[in-house]
Amino acid sequence: MIFDTIFANDTASSSSSSSSYLGNLLVVPMDGSHWVGMKAIAQEMGRRGHRVTVVIPEVSMQMGPGKYYDTVIHPVLYDRAYIDSVTSVHKDMMQKSAQSFIQKIKTRFAVTQKITDLIYRTAESLLFNDSLISHLAQQGFDAVLTDPMVPTGSLIARKLGIPTINLLRGMPFFLDMRSAGCPCPPSYVPRFFTGYSDKMSFKERVVNTLVSVYRHIYTGRCMHEERMCFYCFLGEEVCVAEVLSDSAIWLLRIDLILEFPRPLMPNMVLVGGINCNVRNPLPEVRSWVSGEFGFVVFTLGTMVSDLPEEKTSIFLEAFRQIPQKVIWRYTGQVPDNVPENVKMMGWVPQNDLLAHPGARAFITHAGSHGIFEGLCHAVPMVMMPMRADQHDNAERLANKGAGVVVDIFSITTESLLQGLNEVLHDVRYKEDVQKLSALHKDRPVEPLDLSVYWTEYVMRHKGAKHLKPAGIDLNWIQYFCLDVIALLASVVLLFGILIVKCMKLCFRKLSRKRKRD
Amino acid sequence: MIFDTIFANDTASSSSSSSSYLGNLLVVPMDGSHWVGMKAIAQEMGRRGHRVTVVIPEVSMQMGPGKYYDTVIHPVLYDRAYIDSVTSVHKDMMQKSAQSFIQKIKTRFAVTQKITDLIYRTAESLLFNDSLISHLAQQGFDAVLTDPMVPTGSLIARKLGIPTINLLRGMPFFLDMRSAGCPCPPSYVPRFFTGYSDKMSFKERVVNTLVSVYRHIYTGRCMHEERMCFYCFLGEEVCVAEVLSDSAIWLLRIDLILEFPRPLMPNMVLVGGINCNVRNPLPEVRSWVSGEFGFVVFTLGTMVSDLPEEKTSIFLEAFRQIPQKVIWRYTGQVPDNVPENVKMMGWVPQNDLLAHPGARAFITHAGSHGIFEGLCHAVPMVMMPMRADQHDNAERLANKGAGVVVDIFSITTESLLQGLNEVLHDVRYKEDVQKLSALHKDRPVEPLDLSVYWTEYVMRHKGAKHLKPAGIDLNWIQYFCLDVIALLASVVLLFGILIVKCMKLCFRKLSRKRKRD
Repeated sequence: MIFDTIFANDTASSSSSSSSYLGNLLVVPMDGSHWVGMKAIAQEMGRRGHRVTVVIPEVSMQMGPGKYYDTVIHPVLYDRAYIDSVTSVHKDMMQKSAQSFIQKIKTRFAVTQKITDLIYRTAESLLFNDSLISHLAQQGFDAVLTDPMVPTGSLIARKLGIPTINLLRGMPFFLDMRSAGCPCPPSYVPRFFTGYSDKMSFKERVVNTLVSVYRHIYTGRCMHEERMCFYCFLGEEVCVAEVLSDSAIWLLRIDLILEFPRPLMPNMVLVGGINCNVRNPLPEVRSWVSGEFGFVVFTLGTMVSDLPEEKTSIFLEAFRQIPQKVIWRYTGQVPDNVPENVKMMGWVPQNDLLAHPGARAFITHAGSHGIFEGLCHAVPMVMMPMRADQHDNAERLANKGAGVVVDIFSITTESLLQGLNEVLHDVRYKEDVQKLSALHKDRPVEPLDLSVYWTEYVMRHKGAKHLKPAGIDLNWIQYFCLDVIALLASVVLLFGILIVKCMKLCFRKLSRKRKRD
Repeated sequence: MIFDTIFANDTASSSSSSSSYLGNLLVVPMDGSHWVGMKAIAQEMGRRGHRVTVVIPEVSMQMGPGKYYDTVIHPVLYDRAYIDSVTSVHKDMMQKSAQSFIQKIKTRFAVTQKITDLIYRTAESLLFNDSLISHLAQQGFDAVLTDPMVPTGSLIARKLGIPTINLLRGMPFFLDMRSAGCPCPPSYVPRFFTGYSDKMSFKERVVNTLVSVYRHIYTGRCMHEERMCFYCFLGEEVCVAEVLSDSAIWLLRIDLILEFPRPLMPNMVLVGGINCNVRNPLPEVRSWVSGEFGFVVFTLGTMVSDLPEEKTSIFLEAFRQIPQKVIWRYTGQVPDNVPENVKMMGWVPQNDLLAHPGARAFITHAGSHGIFEGLCHAVPMVMMPMRADQHDNAERLANKGAGVVVDIFSITTESLLQGLNEVLHDVRYKEDVQKLSALHKDRPVEPLDLSVYWTEYVMRHKGAKHLKPAGIDLNWIQYFCLDVIALLASVVLLFGILIVKCMKLCFRKLSRKRKRD
């Protein structure tokens, strides 16, 4: 089996459409929480009558068929156990033995390595499945909707010569900004992982500039394997930044409530909160959550649904001491001593629970989807960042008064209780998160509708070339006008030298004349 | 009379509103064509139930009361004859005698001088009318909607401590971009009046950079009179860029069909084409324009509605030779020999005529409102730019195939006929302008609705501080990180010197040792 035949979706063919242009969209998603927003767009596009085809691997964490789109399943060289081993690395990070500095570094490295391996293996299985690629080439797609964190979709789009729409939170080293030709002055645009705000001291600006220069050099050179992989697939020597610069539209899952104001390009559209309107009913939990004290939602994202025993008991002990009910997304072994007010479930309808008026607090890892759900529904947060952008997200929200940050690696029952009680009883958290929520939700078009609009736009016009800045085609010497500055400086210097020479000459002649006199 | 009592508008108090928040908006407009978009927003805000107060001088070119807003009329130290003398300077520019180089420069200078004088006199009459300013201060306005080309509104907003919404096409020397903290890399963002595209040769980049540096110096220092005027009004020493940097939202009357893609700030909203949906019925001309050959619309903007006799006859002679009817906005003396297919009227419903399916061509001065009306209704254009941004607008549209440029100063019947016949008979112009029109009109929200939305947003949230970039508060050394670069360069230099010194020392020791051996 080279790839599975296309599963016809249940209703797409009979669905009604409000759009006059019906097109053919290819979706190449990324697994994990990245799938949430992508699925929402794929579903909505299908619901509007477009033909939507989603390419997914036969084994994945979250991805699967949907009501309004077709799926093309491609085989991969790993199984479910491998996926489980990848997600379990986060549990290892929580082990007590992982608290020493060396061990911490080792575990973090292992996490990154395992995730990268999974990504590479999935990408290769897709790109080098020749019959699947030629099948896709024959489908006459108008555009590719993809997540550029893994440029598989962008590579396919380049090979098939069709435009790309990207959905993303942001890329390490601002690779997205570089590819889109968007300036990010290091003087007030803090780099990821620095934890800085937009108001930096001189020292912070030095560090931010160094990170920025490093990013420029790092993203400028392309890893050898990457280049080889691209060459084998495309038959041309290109770099990832070059492939991504083809992109027609960048749908950024950010919002200026959390992001510091910075320049954006005309082909960038802010769709932070795209995941907040995908409402489902609350099945069995609806009756359970009702109660005078309300409830707390506790999830740590797609990748972390299980904790070491000693960590689990810290949480349970704290929950035992609060009157609120707690719904916890937990896929591990449920212990015997679970308090009555705690429900541990393999899957929880997080967004719908947070939208419930009884939601009092949200314990979250501060992933980019979760924080928007907390923000949309104005629920104060206890944030426990672990990796990637989570630390930055948590710090920014905490600074704006929407919650508190608790270190999950050194957590104790006391520190958790303290944080939890703070957001539960200090009304300022609720007030602040309500103000932020009102600002965040005040927008002319809903993020999901806006995403669908720009996806349709690219399909209608076969791209958006008129939105692409000319700066992308310049090298950095031309971009920063360093050649112009060099010329102007030389002219000024030459002019200065000439004046000095002239003055010296005059002075000499004058002094000779005086001597003669 | 220090200022006229407020004229209650006809229907505002009884108008229905779809908005939940009803506010109190002050509008400080600019005269001439700039009034068009501003009036549209004021009317729509009033129609939605907001209280809208427009401050206008007792004598003006275009401004006046409207159905949905109140007006506060302030006295000025000039009369109608003065206004007429200002508008007539454009007629002088067209005189045959104004064709010599020296005369050209003189006339252009006189035009700029007269317009600047009018602007200053109007601004002073408003700002130093103490009783009017204190009356405005008592009205409890939520925000000021203004045109920053004349910063009167921005100064009043600063004095009253209320947020500003700007509506503008763009300011000379990119002063708007500077005030909003928006980067404009000279490597691919062409400066006004250079006529360059976003793809520049090295020479063009040199000129563009020089213009950019000049702008930076020019806008950095503030004219003495300006500074004095600001000091007298505000009681603080400020510069115009500083006053404008208070602005909450920038509504830019531009569109990326005409503008080269460049960075924008999150508080900038593109509303190009805001004037195209203000539809009125076509009164007496509707029956006249119908006919198998269609008709040509001819207007040269608010400021130019009269031409010297010899220029008028050139146009009439050309129009006599085409089968299309021509509607010409003309306020001068109508000559005796007007051909039957030409109608000269003091005012024409330009937008509505262009929207009529019979419109075959649009002879325009390529002002920022006219070109959008031509573009919206997909009418090929014969463009005759005279001043300001008109040359840039015309060149860009002509490059995209939407029309031809004819020099109005050296125009002959033949050159006009050639241009006119080209756009009337070569179908490529119609096809190209239709494509551009389709792209321009493909937007998630109509420009007028978007303008009203962001005006209401600022009123609802008492500003939009979270959209203001921190870069505005940095001086240019900090902004461009020149201090950081100096430090890093010094470190590298020091490191280099140290290495060289060490090597020298080692070499010396080594050679001494050798000598001893």
